[in-house]
Amino acid sequence: MNAPTPLTALARIRVILSRTSHPGNIGAAARAMKTMGLSRLYLVAPRHFPDPQAHAMAAGAVDLLDNATLCDSVSAALQGTSLAVAVTARRRELASPILWARGAASEIVAEAMQGEVALLFGNETSGLANEETDLCQRLVMIPTNADFKSLNLAAAVQILCYEIRQAALDPGPPPSITEAGQPAPHEEVDGLLNHLERAAISSGFLDPAEPKRLMPRMRRMFARARPEREEIAILRGMLAALEKES
Amino acid sequence: MNAPTPLTALARIRVILSRTSHPGNIGAAARAMKTMGLSRLYLVAPRHFPDPQAHAMAAGAVDLLDNATLCDSVSAALQGTSLAVAVTARRRELASPILWARGAASEIVAEAMQGEVALLFGNETSGLANEETDLCQRLVMIPTNADFKSLNLAAAVQILCYEIRQAALDPGPPPSITEAGQPAPHEEVDGLLNHLERAAISSGFLDPAEPKRLMPRMRRMFARARPEREEIAILRGMLAALEKES
Repeated sequence: MNAPTPLTALARIRVILSRTSHPGNIGAAARAMKTMGLSRLYLVAPRHFPDPQAHAMAAGAVDLLDNATLCDSVSAALQGTSLAVAVTARRRELASPILWARGAASEIVAEAMQGEVALLFGNETSGLANEETDLCQRLVMIPTNADFKSLNLAAAVQILCYEIRQAALDPGPPPSITEAGQPAPHEEVDGLLNHLERAAISSGFLDPAEPKRLMPRMRRMFARARPEREEIAILRGMLAALEKES
Repeated sequence: MNAPTPLTALARIRVILSRTSHPGNIGAAARAMKTMGLSRLYLVAPRHFPDPQAHAMAAGAVDLLDNATLCDSVSAALQGTSLAVAVTARRRELASPILWARGAASEIVAEAMQGEVALLFGNETSGLANEETDLCQRLVMIPTNADFKSLNLAAAVQILCYEIRQAALDPGPPPSITEAGQPAPHEEVDGLLNHLERAAISSGFLDPAEPKRLMPRMRRMFARARPEREEIAILRGMLAALEKES
């Protein structure tokens, strides 16, 4: 067997949805999982499944629905897992340690490098029963507005899967734009500023005896703009045309 | 005027949904915003609004729909903002710098401490037009599965708003469970281990002349379990009862 990679670790994390009422949420959860590279969906006693609404909300993630494992109980859905994490919105008495989603994500990924991990989500209205969270070794909460904690089920799945992907895979630097997006080198920006100053003086807009802060301000603005070669060429062309005209 | 706080900064961030096709997504986006403490929704030429589906998906966030600002164009929706951030799934030619959601969140919050900020989301199928992203100073992407980047609109709103809340407000330590959840002090765990060893010896299970690694293993297990006072009392009570019986 090959050594696990972060990508194979994602494949070892199952999402268990317990007693889901609305099939649309099952489909939306499948889509949320797949966008983040998770693929194993377990459904414990869903009210309606399969259901056209689930398929409609899954969009391109219907394969997760087709391969979903249907179970009678959370205990059955946990077979084979060594870490079970319950996602909950409320505090409970006599419960496992509570972690925030971000803190839990790295532990979940580390565990998934070794074995099977489950994320357990409860019913839309009633959440998880204590008998269900009791089967888990960790409770996870998502920090929310204290006045409105009501995350949609698929939205909670999305945030957890997103945090797990972030913990598993460094996305690297953001994608670069195009080659044309390269900022011009120092000397070309300098050339533009010198040209601008000459034009300002020759037009009478700037008095070289009393230059004030005009050119430093312009330099500061172009420092923020980080102009590209092409943009400097446009500005200098325009300046040259204006100088010729006057 | 009072100095801005991170909470008032959240109130200065508007979410603009441009040309949304499905009213359910507008409602789900409103709910996503409110769970993270954002409240200002702008709708540019939505296909159906107001609409019962939007209200159904908003759940307890209908106030955001009732107070939503309807606009004819993205430019109108951007009035008053000093930073506009376009959320996009694809690279573009001749565009603003691209950031990942997490990196963008802290810049968005810092800017919102000073002025108005907009997050711009495009149509479900076609995304944002170049004419729309051209009005923004930043592009933001959410890292996804390279084989399935298709985030639902409200799911993308949820992730951005979540990242922004995380950047704005330290959620502090996770909520503690109950007072009963306190791990017992060192000496009580020691008392249990001594009791366990005595019982193991007196029952003949452990040969004190050849103890091997039995007790270190038990100590290691209880170190992971971090038992509470109550749990130690239960275990010692049970040991005492077993000792009496034998």
